[in-house]
Amino acid sequence: MLKDITDKIIHPTVLLDKKKCFANIERMVKKANKYNLALRPHFKTHQSAEIGKWFMDLGVAEITVSSIEMAVYFAKNGWKKIIIAFPINVRAIHQLNELAAQCQLTVLVTNASSMAALTEGIKTPLSFFIEIDTGYGRTGIKPEDLSQISEFINQSKSNDKLKFRGFYVHNGHTYKANSQEEINEIHIGSIRKLKKLKDRFKETFPDIEVQMGDTPSCSTMEHFEYIDAIGPGNFVFYDLVQTGIGSCNVTDIAVAIACPVVDKYPESCEIIIHGGGVHFSKDKLEEEDRTIYGKVVKLDESTWSEPIPNVYISALSQEHGTIKADREFFDSISIGDVVYALPVHACLAVNLHAHYLTLEGEKISRLH
Amino acid sequence: MLKDITDKIIHPTVLLDKKKCFANIERMVKKANKYNLALRPHFKTHQSAEIGKWFMDLGVAEITVSSIEMAVYFAKNGWKKIIIAFPINVRAIHQLNELAAQCQLTVLVTNASSMAALTEGIKTPLSFFIEIDTGYGRTGIKPEDLSQISEFINQSKSNDKLKFRGFYVHNGHTYKANSQEEINEIHIGSIRKLKKLKDRFKETFPDIEVQMGDTPSCSTMEHFEYIDAIGPGNFVFYDLVQTGIGSCNVTDIAVAIACPVVDKYPESCEIIIHGGGVHFSKDKLEEEDRTIYGKVVKLDESTWSEPIPNVYISALSQEHGTIKADREFFDSISIGDVVYALPVHACLAVNLHAHYLTLEGEKISRLH
Repeated sequence: MLKDITDKIIHPTVLLDKKKCFANIERMVKKANKYNLALRPHFKTHQSAEIGKWFMDLGVAEITVSSIEMAVYFAKNGWKKIIIAFPINVRAIHQLNELAAQCQLTVLVTNASSMAALTEGIKTPLSFFIEIDTGYGRTGIKPEDLSQISEFINQSKSNDKLKFRGFYVHNGHTYKANSQEEINEIHIGSIRKLKKLKDRFKETFPDIEVQMGDTPSCSTMEHFEYIDAIGPGNFVFYDLVQTGIGSCNVTDIAVAIACPVVDKYPESCEIIIHGGGVHFSKDKLEEEDRTIYGKVVKLDESTWSEPIPNVYISALSQEHGTIKADREFFDSISIGDVVYALPVHACLAVNLHAHYLTLEGEKISRLH
Repeated sequence: MLKDITDKIIHPTVLLDKKKCFANIERMVKKANKYNLALRPHFKTHQSAEIGKWFMDLGVAEITVSSIEMAVYFAKNGWKKIIIAFPINVRAIHQLNELAAQCQLTVLVTNASSMAALTEGIKTPLSFFIEIDTGYGRTGIKPEDLSQISEFINQSKSNDKLKFRGFYVHNGHTYKANSQEEINEIHIGSIRKLKKLKDRFKETFPDIEVQMGDTPSCSTMEHFEYIDAIGPGNFVFYDLVQTGIGSCNVTDIAVAIACPVVDKYPESCEIIIHGGGVHFSKDKLEEEDRTIYGKVVKLDESTWSEPIPNVYISALSQEHGTIKADREFFDSISIGDVVYALPVHACLAVNLHAHYLTLEGEKISRLH
């Protein structure tokens, strides 16, 4: 059957292994159920109404996104509860009002200025999380800053359109973790801080929630005390970065970029593909002395193989990709063949394509 | 007037300074005229029918692109002569046949296998360049490989649909040049090799052409002996990489990404913008101990300033950008303002957007 797929590849295409993708989704659904967590998956990775439906079919009722544009897209596609896990863009308050009329919207409050603009500008009821920065250092209120947190909560008490929902944390620094111990430390340390916060406000807000986001923690950890909801995104596909962290096995990666072979250079053992920075993005791995923009796999009868050792994308220009190959792989490939490569960072790679092609030959569209 | 533009920015947006862009185009048109070169600009950078028309209005009759998709788009938008400067994708010969029926198409031959597929599959007349690799090392035939070059030419002689046009060179290694001397050396060395080739085949093909592509050489060099046509692309906008190479002044950069400010952190002097890897791409500069994904400018009455020293994008996640600021800039910016940043690599950054917004407020669409 996979021979048929190869026949369909004319230009660079994102292949989606639906079975792997389903398995990734089911595994996370089970984990959420096991620990009594609401799963509010982050849809920034796939950005596809159809893939979204696979989550809906498994009982997911609320989703996380990272832009108003995505929220509008998924609201149009049947989602009734949406969290925009990105600091409020006060220039777009009118859009938030429109959106909040179409779905149960939750936004992220990260500073007093945006909170003031929200309080003043909001016309349609919505909820908010306060983003807490337990160590990542990108955005959010420090958990020690109780006066700021209390102020936000008090502001919402005097505004019948604004409902305080709890705390949101994205421990993005787990993406740079070099060991499971490091992820443990980040995750457990973060929970400890969140517990304190939750306890502090639980009396006034018995329904107070803590939502946590990163794929490495949600994939590897077995401790979710004091956490109510998780919102990982990347796990739907995984990628080489996540494999490196230990969030997944390389066989869990559910997308591969299919690229036509357009040239071969025997002296350097290099294969040139149509597949460049506009198909993979420029995220890269540094492994030993190699810079890697993707690892090459082979199709077998039902899916793709693990990466072929020593065969990887070593350079990308806008449309060209250069594959460094060993002699055996080099000799096995002809100009006009299709080569398949696992992406370093799936979110940014698939964002460059308007469609997915499943191994069964279905075309699945996404926000583009 | 630029106040009006700021009012229009709700989400991350590519701003286009039309005057700078026109000046970049005019400068290259003049240079081509001065040296009696055909200008066949590479449209992979702007990928816009409307910007394409600005070239047409200045007498440009033939263009260069790097994919069949772009060729189809520009053929639909009135271009009659198109060069696809990318190794032939033999899986798409039927599309080449369709395209060749709509415009005077030129393709790039880089290997015997693709040449054979082309010879066999071509039904509509088209022309071809042989790509020559004079040192870049990505794709192309080595200039010493006269037997291969002669073979291609002979194959075309016995095929009435295939017309040999000459040699195409892209000296992409000038992008990594650290000095004007290095660009000189690459450019002049390349011309020397091309001269030999041209002389070798000129008798049989009196109309033989040499086309050369890179923006650094085309922008800075004043020697184009034996060159017949140039096909630079990036110069239409330029960017921080080109400024670093010396291809342009920083004031020539014609695009800036406008990003809403969503958060501020006084302790670290960091400003958070809506503007991430999906708006800038992940190409970066390493300057001293800094990793730079964009340099921040300010709007004045008619355009934007030079980069503000010590104010730059230091990190990008999918939707978030982090600006490292000095205290003065930090204090001058409020949440809800718009910040403008020059891209590191314009081609990949603008590729992520569906439109340009000119400083006059016009929306210009592009292939997306």
